[in-house]
Amino acid sequence: MKIIVIGATGTIGSAVAQALAARRHEVIGASRHAALAVEIEEGTSIQRLFDTIPAIDAVVCCAGNATFGSLASLTDADYQLGLRSKLMGQVALARIAKDRLRDGGSITLTSGILATRPMPGSAAISLVNAGLNGFVRAAALELPRRLRINIVSPPWVKETMVKLGMDPSTGLAATQVAQAYVASVEGQHQGVVLDPAHLPPH
Amino acid sequence: MKIIVIGATGTIGSAVAQALAARRHEVIGASRHAALAVEIEEGTSIQRLFDTIPAIDAVVCCAGNATFGSLASLTDADYQLGLRSKLMGQVALARIAKDRLRDGGSITLTSGILATRPMPGSAAISLVNAGLNGFVRAAALELPRRLRINIVSPPWVKETMVKLGMDPSTGLAATQVAQAYVASVEGQHQGVVLDPAHLPPH
Repeated sequence: MKIIVIGATGTIGSAVAQALAARRHEVIGASRHAALAVEIEEGTSIQRLFDTIPAIDAVVCCAGNATFGSLASLTDADYQLGLRSKLMGQVALARIAKDRLRDGGSITLTSGILATRPMPGSAAISLVNAGLNGFVRAAALELPRRLRINIVSPPWVKETMVKLGMDPSTGLAATQVAQAYVASVEGQHQGVVLDPAHLPPH
Repeated sequence: MKIIVIGATGTIGSAVAQALAARRHEVIGASRHAALAVEIEEGTSIQRLFDTIPAIDAVVCCAGNATFGSLASLTDADYQLGLRSKLMGQVALARIAKDRLRDGGSITLTSGILATRPMPGSAAISLVNAGLNGFVRAAALELPRRLRINIVSPPWVKETMVKLGMDPSTGLAATQVAQAYVASVEGQHQGVVLDPAHLPPH
């Protein structure tokens, strides 16, 4: 398959790109700063990506920002960043991809465990991640042309925990998280929130 | 308790106001068009409400719009309405209420069953409702002064189904839905998504 991975330079995105390439797929990495540039906050930028790369079978998104911060300190701007970037950026990608992917193709977005297992400081991120899960479950009911959409809800990733000075022992390695994206692209899942720690059978 | 019900003229809101009044609470109804006017999309309007009515113990919100429409027909403006009104309007209410309610008070918001049980046409609403559930679960971890926050996720309401020309036999009466709000206000729930068809014990 010909697959675009958006956010391909990040911790998860680079592991996903590698895992898909190892499965002999043609993987095209895109990100804000890559040679193939895309800004998911801008619909025109997403459209341009599909204009540039024709006949895509699958798009995977590991991009999008949201702000971690206490309920007392989160500002309107903090919430708006998450809505504009991680939430509606990925929704825009899905809406455009449904018209541009090849028949039978797939869309895989990224939410996160804070959607359902919050922690102090996660109010804005939990909102965004849960909203994405809700959108994907609903959108799956209406996709045309045998398209599929799923979302991976990663737990804490070991590599990220190390960067943040956290104990990584409870985390999952990025290579393991990447297998959930492979399952979404290659399997028959539709409208599923995939937990990389408990992958359902294809 | 002294309780403000926002959206007190709607199908659910009016049943909630009645149910709380029947429990001998002092219920103050507010809505966009009521004598006590509030527009939850405007933070200044919410602040003014708390300025006008001092010493509130609980605030209940049954207000907020989002657009039902097919994935193919939903526009950017449709999504933005849901984000601005039902989603961030209620989040703004919660953020302001946490600073203005009396100690030990409570916040009760409204999402809906489409958060987790979508149907064709619900993509924007499912996003909003699921996002609200995620926010409430997270915000509950950080509320000061023994405040509580919960959210009622109503199923289809009989009265609404009749208005829409649907068979109401699978719906729940607004008076039954209202009991979930009573449970949120009077009980000890914290960070709970309350399903009026399956209320947990107080």
